[in-house]
Amino acid sequence: MQKLIFTSAPGTELDKVLAEMRPGKVFVLADDNTVRLLPGLREKESKYLSGAQVITIPAGDAHKNLETLSHIWMQLSQKGATRTSVLVNFGGGVVTDIGGFAAATFKRGIRFINVPTTLLGAVDAAVGGKTGINFAGLKNEIGVFREAEAVVVSTVFFNTLPQAELLSGYAEMLKHGALQGEETLLRLLGFDIDSDNLDLDALLDMLRESVMVKKRVVESDPTEQGLRKTLNLGHTIGHALESLALERNRPVPHGYAVARGLVGALVLSHIKAGYPSPSLHSIAAFVKDKYGAPVITCDDYPRLLELMTHDKKNTTPDAVNFTLLSAPGKPEINRTASPEEIKTALDITRDLLGA
Amino acid sequence: MQKLIFTSAPGTELDKVLAEMRPGKVFVLADDNTVRLLPGLREKESKYLSGAQVITIPAGDAHKNLETLSHIWMQLSQKGATRTSVLVNFGGGVVTDIGGFAAATFKRGIRFINVPTTLLGAVDAAVGGKTGINFAGLKNEIGVFREAEAVVVSTVFFNTLPQAELLSGYAEMLKHGALQGEETLLRLLGFDIDSDNLDLDALLDMLRESVMVKKRVVESDPTEQGLRKTLNLGHTIGHALESLALERNRPVPHGYAVARGLVGALVLSHIKAGYPSPSLHSIAAFVKDKYGAPVITCDDYPRLLELMTHDKKNTTPDAVNFTLLSAPGKPEINRTASPEEIKTALDITRDLLGA
Repeated sequence: MQKLIFTSAPGTELDKVLAEMRPGKVFVLADDNTVRLLPGLREKESKYLSGAQVITIPAGDAHKNLETLSHIWMQLSQKGATRTSVLVNFGGGVVTDIGGFAAATFKRGIRFINVPTTLLGAVDAAVGGKTGINFAGLKNEIGVFREAEAVVVSTVFFNTLPQAELLSGYAEMLKHGALQGEETLLRLLGFDIDSDNLDLDALLDMLRESVMVKKRVVESDPTEQGLRKTLNLGHTIGHALESLALERNRPVPHGYAVARGLVGALVLSHIKAGYPSPSLHSIAAFVKDKYGAPVITCDDYPRLLELMTHDKKNTTPDAVNFTLLSAPGKPEINRTASPEEIKTALDITRDLLGA
Repeated sequence: MQKLIFTSAPGTELDKVLAEMRPGKVFVLADDNTVRLLPGLREKESKYLSGAQVITIPAGDAHKNLETLSHIWMQLSQKGATRTSVLVNFGGGVVTDIGGFAAATFKRGIRFINVPTTLLGAVDAAVGGKTGINFAGLKNEIGVFREAEAVVVSTVFFNTLPQAELLSGYAEMLKHGALQGEETLLRLLGFDIDSDNLDLDALLDMLRESVMVKKRVVESDPTEQGLRKTLNLGHTIGHALESLALERNRPVPHGYAVARGLVGALVLSHIKAGYPSPSLHSIAAFVKDKYGAPVITCDDYPRLLELMTHDKKNTTPDAVNFTLLSAPGKPEINRTASPEEIKTALDITRDLLGA
């Protein structure tokens, strides 16, 4: 059973978890950025980390590739990792994705712990067992499903995060809120994520609820056969917006695309599944305020539709598969929408977001 | 549940299995040698294979590496494999190991079928879920546990195998026989594996029994926590002999080393666990006749002991872990032997094998 820990003292909690696991050698995977947060953890708080060997990789999604993976394997091998070793992945989604995959495949699998240091990593990547790397120009083309033994979530790392990074993670929390229900959603829409003086305790509370939404869904469907598709809410349109922006050399953060895609999915939900208009409008107002509108015109619709069709989670090549909501907390998976319906939804979305 | 099929018409059986799996695209992984056996299967017997895309890799354990793995991933990606695709691994242990790993990690896992074309592949590699590649100079350093959806075993491919290859596989069958019991063992010792006119039907029968021995053990312990270690019988000494021969640039086939290691393990079993002398002598006589003696002297013992200590299945660095037998069919795992006991066993083994 996976341990999921929410704490303001991550080093101390990490030590407790490691003590229970009785590891052989302990290894820490960090990137160029998070390696600078390690000394604080190692000396003040975590005894296990003081004795751990550190493997460092370059930061950024561009390095979530075979070369970096091979470097991690080589370091584990050369530094004498055995089947009893434990790898602690200390970083954002890139570190937990590639570190989880490295651990899942080293000597046919060693144990690993995720300590996400970004909001997006905490709410999305660190829990759920999806590990992997980008390959052949495709995101997460290679990987396995394998859960971390434990995930230690703390907001203490978030104070130094850029605003765009925080908002990116918050978009996934909004998605989980919409999947959870009205009350959660209202709390999220009322929180000041833009503040210079972020309320880390309140954020940790909301994060706990948000991660548990994901965890419950994943446990009911670990390898994405059905219900797990609810977590794709907002991602079909979101991924298309993200890919289009990338094609034009004006990349947008994943979470920004997801936030706008979420509004698009809720517009479609309103049209096709009766999602209530007041809730749609409050979410759209929040997204407009924090994330702004996607830079698209109706000339972009054909390309966006193509990109939606090639989304790997679609199994039928001629219709586009969506997760929709009939109300907050009421998901419907495997709904399809016609190109006309999608175009209408994009029109309304642009209008709501002030494009 | 994994399907395990023993047949003299592998193409026909493969078609049946594939039909039940309702695959999207079908891919076949072959090596330089086995690709030449494919036309027979594709045109005469298997309709699914006729429509399949073939991915070819260079033959041999030297190519069970990251470069070849990356080639397979790239081919799957470029040829449009999706989550509904099925990969048929058509070859010996290298093909089923690396193909199984490629499938287990492509898009976080697609289904695969093993069709072993060598006796060693059939009796050892194709069943049991161990997949992987060599890395950093270490065998199977990277991989996962993942069972094939189905294994189609046939002896029709064995007629063209070199004698050394057949004997190599037969050594693993002897090991399974010793784990199974007296009756199985006697049948194996009485079979003419050296014949110019191999009895393929009788071999298929014995192979069925042998594979089922392994399958039962694996099912009780898929990730090698305990009982699966019985399958290491003969391998602690065998791997050391194999590594020593390699260091001296006089490599021996894996199965030859295992056959000699099996005799060594049974000598130790006789000394430490009361394995009956008559059975030890008949096995030793068979191994002496078919495989001959290892080319070692007592000057090699220190290096052999070192190699046994570094075997990755040993968790305690100062003692050597063995699987022993108190009688045919009566394994005892996690027995340790002292350096002196091992040296004595090596002396007796050399004597029995006429070194």
